[in-house]
Amino acid sequence: MTITITAFANSPDEGQGMARDMQVRWALEEVGLPYAVRLVSFDEMVQPAHLARQPFGQIPTYEDGTVTLFETGAINLHIGLNHPGLLPDDPAARARAITWMFAAQATVEPPIVELEASSFADPDTPWRAEHEAIVTARIRKRLDALSARLGSADWLEADGFSAGDLAMVGVLRRVEDTGILDDYPTLQAYIDRATARPAFRRAFAAQRAVFEAAQTKD
Amino acid sequence: MTITITAFANSPDEGQGMARDMQVRWALEEVGLPYAVRLVSFDEMVQPAHLARQPFGQIPTYEDGTVTLFETGAINLHIGLNHPGLLPDDPAARARAITWMFAAQATVEPPIVELEASSFADPDTPWRAEHEAIVTARIRKRLDALSARLGSADWLEADGFSAGDLAMVGVLRRVEDTGILDDYPTLQAYIDRATARPAFRRAFAAQRAVFEAAQTKD
Repeated sequence: MTITITAFANSPDEGQGMARDMQVRWALEEVGLPYAVRLVSFDEMVQPAHLARQPFGQIPTYEDGTVTLFETGAINLHIGLNHPGLLPDDPAARARAITWMFAAQATVEPPIVELEASSFADPDTPWRAEHEAIVTARIRKRLDALSARLGSADWLEADGFSAGDLAMVGVLRRVEDTGILDDYPTLQAYIDRATARPAFRRAFAAQRAVFEAAQTKD
Repeated sequence: MTITITAFANSPDEGQGMARDMQVRWALEEVGLPYAVRLVSFDEMVQPAHLARQPFGQIPTYEDGTVTLFETGAINLHIGLNHPGLLPDDPAARARAITWMFAAQATVEPPIVELEASSFADPDTPWRAEHEAIVTARIRKRLDALSARLGSADWLEADGFSAGDLAMVGVLRRVEDTGILDDYPTLQAYIDRATARPAFRRAFAAQRAVFEAAQTKD
């Protein structure tokens, strides 16, 4: 079984690992599965070949010869359900880990993506700062709840690191450069703990290498 | 095994079935599982007893004596993985159905929730219309892609109705009153097809009864 994922040929994040292929690479590294990468340009992402894999024209996708999937969360859940290393064996613990995968994407991420969308807006938009303050308050409400639940624990559930932590840290990394996390030292420590994992480091280096290779070509 | 879910004691949607317990009720009806409902007031939602179940102070939650879960998607996935009626048996088809559960919540819903958040803002906010136009364009981009993929099919995958359709229709119903769907007749037909299902009708009636009982008490 050869796994192929898709990633940006030219990631707009300049190798910072903010593109969503980072999380799938990380999951594959956690379970020790090798993978190939098909790089797609922004032009290719809206062509029929890619839209057949990803109807919304995004990355990442996952193909293993048996199934083609999209959505970071769905891909990582599929990997976790089929390979040890991302989800606990106990059914209740497994369901709780999966709950955090959904919480990361459906509850914590949306205001963070909204803040990013705002940062792409015209800087002269007169209401940009006002809107960003509203969205930042929404992000803080989520982070207040998350840090209260995490407390002084290493990971979100007592069963240890899971795909739920991977998803949550994948989302939290998106506000690392905003200063918001200065008020959440335990969440910053949680990110640091997760990103120190060898699987994260390998995944980060792999996506970074794509950016560096693209630079050399230019 | 008695399943207990939580729902708003006083739903702000006045019985329209927009609160997220609607989707869990629907899933439970699809698989034929009875359930009890614990109604929580807005005060109770931020108290320790509820926060222990739902760290973000939201509804719905799910308890079955073995596991306590939150997040609509995670709850419905748990139901679907453990009871026939929501997910195909074939592993590849099952993974594709789960992909649509994540797509509904992580890709289609966020701009829809952002539009709702805007509708709660002060109507005198001078930039409200401009912001709503931006968000509406984002919603349309998702609906363009979704309607292109759905085509003339009844459901998102050839395997038939799944928890992925349930999640997607749950999200699409949130823009039914905006007029946006006038431009997407196949998506409106998709909603109509899903909400005509007996399981949806039973779930809708059950949540509606909570609203009506609360009215009588006032």
